[in-house]
Amino acid sequence: MAHHDATYVAVIGASNATEWELAMAEEVGRRLGRVGAVLVCGGLGGVMDAAAAGAATEGGTSVGILPGDDRTGASPHLTVAVTTGFGEGRNVLVARSADAVIAVGGEFGTLSEVALALKMGKRVVGLGTWDLRRDDTDADPLIRVDDAETAVQIALGG
Amino acid sequence: MAHHDATYVAVIGASNATEWELAMAEEVGRRLGRVGAVLVCGGLGGVMDAAAAGAATEGGTSVGILPGDDRTGASPHLTVAVTTGFGEGRNVLVARSADAVIAVGGEFGTLSEVALALKMGKRVVGLGTWDLRRDDTDADPLIRVDDAETAVQIALGG
Amino acid sequence: MAHHDATYVAVIGASNATEWELAMAEEVGRRLGRVGAVLVCGGLGGVMDAAAAGAATEGGTSVGILPGDDRTGASPHLTVAVTTGFGEGRNVLVARSADAVIAVGGEFGTLSEVALALKMGKRVVGLGTWDLRRDDTDADPLIRVDDAETAVQIALGG
Amino acid sequence: MAHHDATYVAVIGASNATEWELAMAEEVGRRLGRVGAVLVCGGLGGVMDAAAAGAATEGGTSVGILPGDDRTGASPHLTVAVTTGFGEGRNVLVARSADAVIAVGGEFGTLSEVALALKMGKRVVGLGTWDLRRDDTDADPLIRVDDAETAVQIALGG
Repeated sequence: MAHHDATYVAVIGASNATEWELAMAEEVGRRLGRVGAVLVCGGLGGVMDAAAAGAATEGGTSVGILPGDDRTGASPHLTVAVTTGFGEGRNVLVARSADAVIAVGGEFGTLSEVALALKMGKRVVGLGTWDLRRDDTDADPLIRVDDAETAVQIALGG
Repeated sequence: MAHHDATYVAVIGASNATEWELAMAEEVGRRLGRVGAVLVCGGLGGVMDAAAAGAATEGGTSVGILPGDDRTGASPHLTVAVTTGFGEGRNVLVARSADAVIAVGGEFGTLSEVALALKMGKRVVGLGTWDLRRDDTDADPLIRVDDAETAVQIALGG
Repeated sequence: MAHHDATYVAVIGASNATEWELAMAEEVGRRLGRVGAVLVCGGLGGVMDAAAAGAATEGGTSVGILPGDDRTGASPHLTVAVTTGFGEGRNVLVARSADAVIAVGGEFGTLSEVALALKMGKRVVGLGTWDLRRDDTDADPLIRVDDAETAVQIALGG
Repeated sequence: MAHHDATYVAVIGASNATEWELAMAEEVGRRLGRVGAVLVCGGLGGVMDAAAAGAATEGGTSVGILPGDDRTGASPHLTVAVTTGFGEGRNVLVARSADAVIAVGGEFGTLSEVALALKMGKRVVGLGTWDLRRDDTDADPLIRVDDAETAVQIALGG
């Protein structure tokens, strides 16, 4: 059972992921589970399932926030699955529920979660994810890292 | 950890609850935890906290779906807390995430969750909750019971 | 065009409505349009369409908040239709957007909107709609009326 | 009144906008109003207000989808304002309600709407907005333009 003062970290990325992304997500999930953080994700396959599987191997707690009306397609490794019936609207809840976010690769859905988390003032760590620029600034709003260990350390405030 | 094919049962009711309602909610939570069902609730105090506490005493799994932007006010007995920032809008997610609903007492928020669950075609069991009538029908859309054991049996399809 | 300080009144009720309900909704819509109130509704058929049609005959402004991902099934009489993709979750937005609510008949969806509006502290006027009781109180949370003129007067604070 | 088969175009951008962005948004709004398109926006100040003001000068129809619980801070130029109480979650509804999106400058909130609209498969036109790249592709998911006239033409499918 999760301690009620655990840190919640969202691991976000696509269903359609590369081998490297799946390996990163799984290791991030394991490291979060090991330290007692709660893993938040979109609850489906690919990066989401890999992260939940990683957390489960360490006895960690995970919650998947699903787009559909029921739990069809939910990762079997989740501790709990929340159905929303909101479609892409569930991305708001993934960002909202997390204290920090780790983006692993990702497509447009992941980009929306990154942007929502940044708008909400949350720390966003990137592992091989979107590059975001505006003409009027050189600043990169994401903290870029190359490995799961550093991603988790930074997400947890280290 | 919750089994991925667990039944999800929402226990809904007010923060401001009577002793009888709290006792009922706590026993419902214990019985759900004992059989491995996942408890869904609104995540705050009163009936919600009592149900989560009951589930926790049996090693059960619970998820609270919170109205606010952060986990302030969340029951410490929850396995996981999902923050929505949707205010009353989170009631939709409580109803949506559950396979069946047990209403214990309750005020307008509980009534909204009962109505949403009925609209979604879910089984709703009532313990001392709202009486709902329309002029053109005698049918009561809720299954009324008087004790926690029967409430849980019916919610689980028994 | 709606004046920016208009009152917003939701007219809620079922797609599957009686002749009396449709006539009431249409007259409520006409009276709201005549005084420059903005009509809010669920945007589909039955009571929703009748209210929007009534508003349109008086040059009134209406907004329909749709459950689906697109405007399929939207009343052609709406000034604007907002698509949500939230299914029943859009009921929260109907209640939230209104300053007062007039319920005309209605099924479980209408009941959820009545309950959400009451929870949000809004005035709810009932025309042949749900009877709501709790054992511990005799108070009826709705203001019951028998005709459209009185319903609109009360909804507008008269 | 909007024709029920109008095209809905979201104009998205920040409250805190440059003179150039405000001028672009206002001209986009005017051009949308002139052709009978419905303008969708986030309903507040800056780019949102400028677009609504532009639409109003041409007798156009606009809907603002607000983050808060009431219409405080809403642009006075809107035809209708929908209150959501969803905070940043309202960005999903801005993207969902539109058939096409024109992004004018913008910060993280705008970026989230761009990403959500792309995820939903909608055409997104950019006027001085975010640059989005992934390492594994050179493709720019936005259609970049330099003036309001071209932005509206492309958003309307021209």
